[in-house]
Amino acid sequence: MAIVLDGEKLSKKIRDDLKKKIGDLGRTLHLAIVRVGDDPATNVFIKMKERVGKEMGVEVTTHAFEKIERTALQEVVLGLSADDAVDGILIQLPLVGIDNEQEILDLVSADKDVDVLGVQAIGRLRHYKEFLYPPVVGSIMALFEAYHIQYRNAFVVLFGGGRLVGSALNTWFKRRDQRVGHAIITEHTTDPEKIIALGDIIIAGVPGEKNAEVITGDMIKDGAVVIDAGYFKLGERRVGNVHFESVSKKASHITPVPGGIGPLTVVWVYKNLYFLASRRIKNA
Amino acid sequence: MAIVLDGEKLSKKIRDDLKKKIGDLGRTLHLAIVRVGDDPATNVFIKMKERVGKEMGVEVTTHAFEKIERTALQEVVLGLSADDAVDGILIQLPLVGIDNEQEILDLVSADKDVDVLGVQAIGRLRHYKEFLYPPVVGSIMALFEAYHIQYRNAFVVLFGGGRLVGSALNTWFKRRDQRVGHAIITEHTTDPEKIIALGDIIIAGVPGEKNAEVITGDMIKDGAVVIDAGYFKLGERRVGNVHFESVSKKASHITPVPGGIGPLTVVWVYKNLYFLASRRIKNA
Repeated sequence: MAIVLDGEKLSKKIRDDLKKKIGDLGRTLHLAIVRVGDDPATNVFIKMKERVGKEMGVEVTTHAFEKIERTALQEVVLGLSADDAVDGILIQLPLVGIDNEQEILDLVSADKDVDVLGVQAIGRLRHYKEFLYPPVVGSIMALFEAYHIQYRNAFVVLFGGGRLVGSALNTWFKRRDQRVGHAIITEHTTDPEKIIALGDIIIAGVPGEKNAEVITGDMIKDGAVVIDAGYFKLGERRVGNVHFESVSKKASHITPVPGGIGPLTVVWVYKNLYFLASRRIKNA
Repeated sequence: MAIVLDGEKLSKKIRDDLKKKIGDLGRTLHLAIVRVGDDPATNVFIKMKERVGKEMGVEVTTHAFEKIERTALQEVVLGLSADDAVDGILIQLPLVGIDNEQEILDLVSADKDVDVLGVQAIGRLRHYKEFLYPPVVGSIMALFEAYHIQYRNAFVVLFGGGRLVGSALNTWFKRRDQRVGHAIITEHTTDPEKIIALGDIIIAGVPGEKNAEVITGDMIKDGAVVIDAGYFKLGERRVGNVHFESVSKKASHITPVPGGIGPLTVVWVYKNLYFLASRRIKNA
């Protein structure tokens, strides 16, 4: 049976440490969340972030628009980027009804980009000495460190190449000081099983309910490390991309859903907020 | 026997078309090349670019420094970025003796970045409607189009994840309108053979003479498409990462070295220069 990677426990440890550090800064930090649309699943994610922010003593302001014109949205984001009272900005995805989301994400100042989604922040992650981890990447690296999982010489299979999970990890693995061999499986990949079977580490993060619990025990290499950043509600059950019961019999390590990657990523937003804010305070 | 993809012939066609278009612009275009160090291999690449520029009627100025302080180099690049008389800037890599090359590449204005190496230009390639192909990516896409090679549902294996080849293709394949499943093999990949064997398309571009002709016929899938962006001089022979003789017996398509990707990438620099300059002229 696989070792279950306890993201809940690790997130609590990081949270306690961070709360103390934020308290020591001597002023209240301010995170602005921007949200467009009224999808209920998004509500849950935003509420979670607001709740953790409150626990940390951070002031969180959510700018929610059921519908908004593109130019008005641009002005909101540019305004927050320029506002000295705002320490961090988080654009909750998806931006319902807004084309070219990246052009909006790129209006977030790299010095406030807690989610590491603008091209400047991504470029720093890829190439610069000083960078921020995107929340999912930082969360996985923290789990690997806590459980002494070696990943540098592993072949990593990314199930999905989206912004928040697959692509963020891909950028990190390409760094000159990393160069981790890896594959990205997309919906156009004809034989995903053949590629998944080669993975020493498998990291899944694909939306869409048809992708719930699709990675099963028979598909993975014996002793693989399986990280599940998917999240679905199937009736009362909450599951990820991985079929936990069968995979946990064959993997060496596995993250549960819930209680794996999820709670870590929320805390990581505040870890990034603290880093950016303390740098601004130091340089002020 | 594989069909040999004739990059020389295709590059001539693109060059003739481009020369006419550049001639029709009504003013001489100006490309600035920046080069640091005195590696003789780099000389060859620069001479090739200068020669093709001359053929096109483009004015090419090479700013060559055997050694230069970082701050002085930054001023050179910023100066060229600001200079209205300069239409395109090409930073020849490697920048010998200069740390953090990316920070220098990011000083090139995205509106003059003919090599698509700054984070702004890369971000546009990943996400924006209007973008430039990095020369290697454009060259490969042009060959695929000319020879009717379907790549969207293929599994592509990138042998190497460097800036100019593997990483540039990776960015392109991740676009929302592409989402091509692919793997990146690095020097840390333990069993590269297993991954190469899955490739419907294999694209190689790794420096270092120990990587000359390392991809052999026994390693590839029957009927695979094999693209070789490697380049080495072994005595009098010029070769790439692919062992042409054995691979051409098993592949469906293969690029030769020389005469494959090389001549196309040089022309592509001028294709990008033309695009950027004509846009600037239109907006002036």
